[in-house]
Amino acid sequence: MDSNVIAVDMGGTKILAAVVNAEGDILGTAKIPTKADKGAAVVIDRIASCIQKAVDKSRVARASIQAVGIGAPGPLDPGTGIVLFAPNLGWTNVPLKTELENRVCLPTFVDNDVNVGTLGEHAFGAGKGMSTLVGIFVGTGIGGGIIMDGELFHGASQTAGEIGHIIVKAGGPRCGCGTRGCLEALASRTAITRQLQKAIVKKGKKSILPELTGGDLKLIRSGALAKALRSNDKLTMKVFKKATKYLGVGIASIVNFLNPEMIVLGGGVVEALDDSFLDDIAAVVADYSLPNTLSGVRIVKAQLGDDAGILGAAALARQRLAAVT
Amino acid sequence: MDSNVIAVDMGGTKILAAVVNAEGDILGTAKIPTKADKGAAVVIDRIASCIQKAVDKSRVARASIQAVGIGAPGPLDPGTGIVLFAPNLGWTNVPLKTELENRVCLPTFVDNDVNVGTLGEHAFGAGKGMSTLVGIFVGTGIGGGIIMDGELFHGASQTAGEIGHIIVKAGGPRCGCGTRGCLEALASRTAITRQLQKAIVKKGKKSILPELTGGDLKLIRSGALAKALRSNDKLTMKVFKKATKYLGVGIASIVNFLNPEMIVLGGGVVEALDDSFLDDIAAVVADYSLPNTLSGVRIVKAQLGDDAGILGAAALARQRLAAVT
Repeated sequence: MDSNVIAVDMGGTKILAAVVNAEGDILGTAKIPTKADKGAAVVIDRIASCIQKAVDKSRVARASIQAVGIGAPGPLDPGTGIVLFAPNLGWTNVPLKTELENRVCLPTFVDNDVNVGTLGEHAFGAGKGMSTLVGIFVGTGIGGGIIMDGELFHGASQTAGEIGHIIVKAGGPRCGCGTRGCLEALASRTAITRQLQKAIVKKGKKSILPELTGGDLKLIRSGALAKALRSNDKLTMKVFKKATKYLGVGIASIVNFLNPEMIVLGGGVVEALDDSFLDDIAAVVADYSLPNTLSGVRIVKAQLGDDAGILGAAALARQRLAAVT
Repeated sequence: MDSNVIAVDMGGTKILAAVVNAEGDILGTAKIPTKADKGAAVVIDRIASCIQKAVDKSRVARASIQAVGIGAPGPLDPGTGIVLFAPNLGWTNVPLKTELENRVCLPTFVDNDVNVGTLGEHAFGAGKGMSTLVGIFVGTGIGGGIIMDGELFHGASQTAGEIGHIIVKAGGPRCGCGTRGCLEALASRTAITRQLQKAIVKKGKKSILPELTGGDLKLIRSGALAKALRSNDKLTMKVFKKATKYLGVGIASIVNFLNPEMIVLGGGVVEALDDSFLDDIAAVVADYSLPNTLSGVRIVKAQLGDDAGILGAAALARQRLAAVT
């Protein structure tokens, strides 16, 4: 009998489900809107229905499916599978694991979406075979996950990996978390676009971005930023240079403190960067790392892109199932 | 038969050796000057002789002694027991483990002195029973050690735990390591005394410190700082306030990123602080930690003082011996 699992990547706007075999091959997928405004019960019904669609498409025997792994937003308890707080879903204390198990009659394992992305890169992407690994995903915010001894490390409050909130510039710009100088406040897409908007609107700096966004600078997404970088837009280059410097400083802190075997960089902002920016980041890391600390550490780009969530959820299902059986 | 180990705390000026039983009781100790200027071979002879003295004093049977644990300065390879570089000893690539084993005919295990201090607090001090723990020792510099899953975590380059070199203020004051804004450059005794000297000598600020040090401000040690704090010396209070704020910011970064069960604060500077400063540090950590991240994390003062090195070396000997037998 084949051994398959169901992997779910659940976001604020869409639910993605897939059937994945032991080799990490995706055998069938389905995608539907989350419709978070309809409430948690409806969303969980929709996850179950999306799972069924993926199973139908994959044409595997239902009996070959052993477990469900799901990456969900927000702080959550990976043990109980309760989502504690997910503002973009409007969820507080939703027992996602239990509710989904009731609907699909399969053991279900839940973890934070960034942890799951890190696990995906570890199991099937850039980090295969590593013992200790830190995943850093730079998008709207900056999230991270920690692999210790080949498994996700959750920490005392189940919140380990919040690398976006290491403080790299005490007294620096205000962060969404309420304090100042966090890495996220200096190097996330939110930080980058805020600086670009300020430079263009308030200081009248020239840039290709108003043209790329049809004049609405609120619409600056990673795609527009990547285009501006490819066009050598001076302002965008300058703002990215600064942001990636802070990213390098944050990475150096991790190299000095945790000294992991590998740091995997992913997310929309990193995908927008060409190799020269990655070289710049590596140079900053080298500058700020203590002598001898970098020799065993590899800093690499994520390989799985959008598939990291699905493949990580598949790895989660297999690892956690093996741990309980 | 009793089961005893020999613990050695080796510094640039003195060698301390002790016989320690399984309960962590110190049965006999000896202390002699290191005489680092005489070269590595002589120093290792002296360690062996110091060990013999401790054994003689303890009156235990030589056959009851199972291993030697030793905390040594500088980056070193805990696997091979080679001290890679120890400027205060003038050592480069000294095979301490092998050389000492040749002299004392006992399995010998070597680790970095700060790691060993952290292990001491974990085995016999503030951190008993913790699974994940970070030790932070604030003295001339700021060192740290990481316990994961009950054991020292060394990292990919054997350098994990260098919390003094997480960057908390990018672009901040220059650090001994050559970069800027490291925690050590803002909150170590070196950073504190530099600021005090500058304020007193260059800016003519009033302080009790010139009186406490007989006018030679180069002699500011933790004892004088503690006295100045106890006398409510305004300048010293102000400089400490700032330094402990940065210490809190650094600790918050660790809480957010690694989320360990416990953070143990030790070293001369921390020992000089009264409870109100520790409350201040806790308040800064709370301010800079993400919601939910602090709930499982305890931040406590080290309990073992100068014994941490010896008791940690004893724990090192037992753990590593158990791992190889």
